Amino acid sequence: MDKIRIVLAGPRGRMGKEAVLLIEETEHFELVAAVDRINEGKYISDIEGMPNVQAPIYTDIEKCFQDVKADVLVDLTTPEIGRVHTKTALTYGVRPVVGTTGFSEEDLKELQQLAEEKELGCIIAPNFAIGAILMMKFSQMAAKYFDDVEIIEMHHDQKLDAPSGTGLKTAELISEVREAKKQGHPEEKELLEGARGADYEGIRLHSVRLPGLIAHQEVMFGGFEQTLKIRHDSYNRASFMSGVKLAVDTVMNVDTLVYGLENIID
Amino acid sequence: MDKIRIVLAGPRGRMGKEAVLLIEETEHFELVAAVDRINEGKYISDIEGMPNVQAPIYTDIEKCFQDVKADVLVDLTTPEIGRVHTKTALTYGVRPVVGTTGFSEEDLKELQQLAEEKELGCIIAPNFAIGAILMMKFSQMAAKYFDDVEIIEMHHDQKLDAPSGTGLKTAELISEVREAKKQGHPEEKELLEGARGADYEGIRLHSVRLPGLIAHQEVMFGGFEQTLKIRHDSYNRASFMSGVKLAVDTVMNVDTLVYGLENIID
Amino acid sequence: MDKIRIVLAGPRGRMGKEAVLLIEETEHFELVAAVDRINEGKYISDIEGMPNVQAPIYTDIEKCFQDVKADVLVDLTTPEIGRVHTKTALTYGVRPVVGTTGFSEEDLKELQQLAEEKELGCIIAPNFAIGAILMMKFSQMAAKYFDDVEIIEMHHDQKLDAPSGTGLKTAELISEVREAKKQGHPEEKELLEGARGADYEGIRLHSVRLPGLIAHQEVMFGGFEQTLKIRHDSYNRASFMSGVKLAVDTVMNVDTLVYGLENIID
Amino acid sequence: MDKIRIVLAGPRGRMGKEAVLLIEETEHFELVAAVDRINEGKYISDIEGMPNVQAPIYTDIEKCFQDVKADVLVDLTTPEIGRVHTKTALTYGVRPVVGTTGFSEEDLKELQQLAEEKELGCIIAPNFAIGAILMMKFSQMAAKYFDDVEIIEMHHDQKLDAPSGTGLKTAELISEVREAKKQGHPEEKELLEGARGADYEGIRLHSVRLPGLIAHQEVMFGGFEQTLKIRHDSYNRASFMSGVKLAVDTVMNVDTLVYGLENIID
Repeated sequence: MDKIRIVLAGPRGRMGKEAVLLIEETEHFELVAAVDRINEGKYISDIEGMPNVQAPIYTDIEKCFQDVKADVLVDLTTPEIGRVHTKTALTYGVRPVVGTTGFSEEDLKELQQLAEEKELGCIIAPNFAIGAILMMKFSQMAAKYFDDVEIIEMHHDQKLDAPSGTGLKTAELISEVREAKKQGHPEEKELLEGARGADYEGIRLHSVRLPGLIAHQEVMFGGFEQTLKIRHDSYNRASFMSGVKLAVDTVMNVDTLVYGLENIID
Repeated sequence: MDKIRIVLAGPRGRMGKEAVLLIEETEHFELVAAVDRINEGKYISDIEGMPNVQAPIYTDIEKCFQDVKADVLVDLTTPEIGRVHTKTALTYGVRPVVGTTGFSEEDLKELQQLAEEKELGCIIAPNFAIGAILMMKFSQMAAKYFDDVEIIEMHHDQKLDAPSGTGLKTAELISEVREAKKQGHPEEKELLEGARGADYEGIRLHSVRLPGLIAHQEVMFGGFEQTLKIRHDSYNRASFMSGVKLAVDTVMNVDTLVYGLENIID
Repeated sequence: MDKIRIVLAGPRGRMGKEAVLLIEETEHFELVAAVDRINEGKYISDIEGMPNVQAPIYTDIEKCFQDVKADVLVDLTTPEIGRVHTKTALTYGVRPVVGTTGFSEEDLKELQQLAEEKELGCIIAPNFAIGAILMMKFSQMAAKYFDDVEIIEMHHDQKLDAPSGTGLKTAELISEVREAKKQGHPEEKELLEGARGADYEGIRLHSVRLPGLIAHQEVMFGGFEQTLKIRHDSYNRASFMSGVKLAVDTVMNVDTLVYGLENIID
Repeated sequence: MDKIRIVLAGPRGRMGKEAVLLIEETEHFELVAAVDRINEGKYISDIEGMPNVQAPIYTDIEKCFQDVKADVLVDLTTPEIGRVHTKTALTYGVRPVVGTTGFSEEDLKELQQLAEEKELGCIIAPNFAIGAILMMKFSQMAAKYFDDVEIIEMHHDQKLDAPSGTGLKTAELISEVREAKKQGHPEEKELLEGARGADYEGIRLHSVRLPGLIAHQEVMFGGFEQTLKIRHDSYNRASFMSGVKLAVDTVMNVDTLVYGLENIID
């Protein structure tokens, strides 16, 4: 297989650093250049803490695409910069993979049109953690066969909100495929308030917060004398990289814009 | 919704007893008769330990179908008897739901032809535990996105074989969608033989046997800084009943033979 | 080792039946007689569903102790009957093992005095599930080294109260050894009410209720980059039998009254 | 409470850096100086990546103790240097807390004598992860009441040895309190070799190796219709810091040498 030639925008951020490592470790990926706000004319290997990769750094993305032959742009910058980068990449025939929650519906429509004109793949995803996306997908599938479900999400004790975004999103996805129902004994009684957790259309959500924990969620289904559990444990931001890898591989084989990693998972 | 009128063959077996309860507890199911080797002319309610259901018992299934208007036959007998029952049911316009591993390919082909002729649904399943089937299905799906997986199956200490049938079946399904690969450190070393478990195309299987356990399996996937786990706990034979229920509901809406519950799950 | 000769009071109850099996299966235990409200003059083997044990049944416990040489009385009757049985046993030099929550402090004081006079062991326990008792004991021990803890208890959905008795008891035991403290982020916010569970002196309790579950509890401690979990799964009433066995063995080696199994566990 | 004045030896190592943070974050701890091979005359705050703490750095530990009034020495250097440091500290009336597996029995005897002469506490520990130590201690306790146990230890796939050191140590501790016994069905059969794991005096050990995992162990006990599980999850080296904190607090209240953290846990 030919190597996929990648330009990385945002190499010095937390995600960016992980992406440099990912590209290095993946045999059929090649980092051909980086786009950054600073360090014009330097190489990735010149930056402290970076691996010894001879990829040139550009501050001007147009100049980058004029100089360097690339297949994919991985953009891990901000929504504002990412929007411009994505358009520019499509214009130069480079397929974008963008991690952001910040594009408006209008942005997406415009980019979709451009991708179709150019017949180029373009993947934009708010969440690259494949494990979490599979957990949500499987939970929605299982909910068709199990009427009762509770969600236990567990995070470090510096988290402000309860339940977590993933917990709520999972509950939403489940309630798309089942009728709201009251779970538990019809006359159940809380001896201590809150014991039965939060209620989302009858689905119970429990938020555990403890030092030492990172980001974990268990979705528990109960039926006739059996339970089915789907659990995701995320140990740090690098858990997003498996999704970036999948997106890079997939963007080469599609010729339209795809929004959300769940739509490239079957 | 009109009630689904059910004839149950094999009401006195362990599964049969649970099926009687299932039908009683399901509002839109109605037990209209039972077929048994003995007790001709009696009622379910006459048998010790059975609930107070006024369903007549027949020893002759043809007579049963002539006397009683039925939609579905739930057959929990033996493969030999079940084969005859299934054919007879289709002949009388009744849709069969059969739990057996004992039908030959020839049997299935013949029954399929008959079902199509009659334009009647017919569901035959070797395993009715929906949770276990979903666990296997999800594991196969997840294996496309996670290269590394280990299976831990846990059973009571009276079990003879290790790994369990479900454990092996799960490993088979996973290896259908991934290349065989050596997992773990390339130079890993067992200080005590067997520590790394059994090896099926690189998938590691671990069999735990302890008194107190019933039947449990966890499929654990590992990737970039994350793990995804799918776990099924089965607490007794009644766990099969959720699958029977699903099959009865589904058989009313298909007009062909379906083999294996995984094919009516989407 | 000489066999321990046991008289069992209450052999036909759910616990009683399990106790008959326990005694049969334990090599150094011998069932020498049973005390029951009915079946005077019959044998255990005469009762339907009982194993083939030639132990005579008495309706009068005094007559039983006069006829049969016994070491231990296992009493699984009611508090009222149990109180009389316990006294009678001590009078006849037989060591009682009693499962009940129904004795008053006065009862206990009186029985303790009698046990000491006779220099006989006597074990009275409200809970014989060793696993649950160890879970509570370990949780109390761990709480000295981990400041943050949450309890997740999981039961079938026919349970009325939340949290469970064991959940509350565990929280009480933990708060005996730690200062009350507010856990989680000081400014944490419930987006859905109840997400953070119930609060007992800062300990969070979460009650999961699902069909298929039986009786499970996980106590989760969090600290510097680590978590410690202690989990008990009880699959049915027979889980009490391991405690009965321990109590019978222990009562032979003490010469006073012990209340609560936790006091014979070290 | 007066602050405990701490000298830290080895501040630039991985453990040392965590210790600096620990001392900063603990209200009743104060970092009064550091001992290092380099940086004489500088302050902790001068070193890149360190927090803004005005503690002077010494290359000569004697000079340090002459200049600075200290209660405790936390030594995270090598066994060779640590041995000298520990002796010097005791001579200067400072209580040592040392993390090392490298002291000989002779070393320990000599240090013990010195500690007793000076009537000073001194804690030397090969393992500071309190959670792991509690897991091992609880497992040994539970093994008295449950005859059957299996150990599942789970680590990242870069680990060479299987089972892990902690796994083996746990099995050793359990076999100190129980007779070796063959577990599982007497005639159990491995369909795939290794399925039943490694065997240590009848205790089964299973080693799971997956990318994404860090360091986890579950000890599972089975008995009459119940299971008891004790699990430790360690997410990185910082998990040792809770043990360092405990040791610093404890060393102030003992007047002898203690070897092993398990001996200050009750």
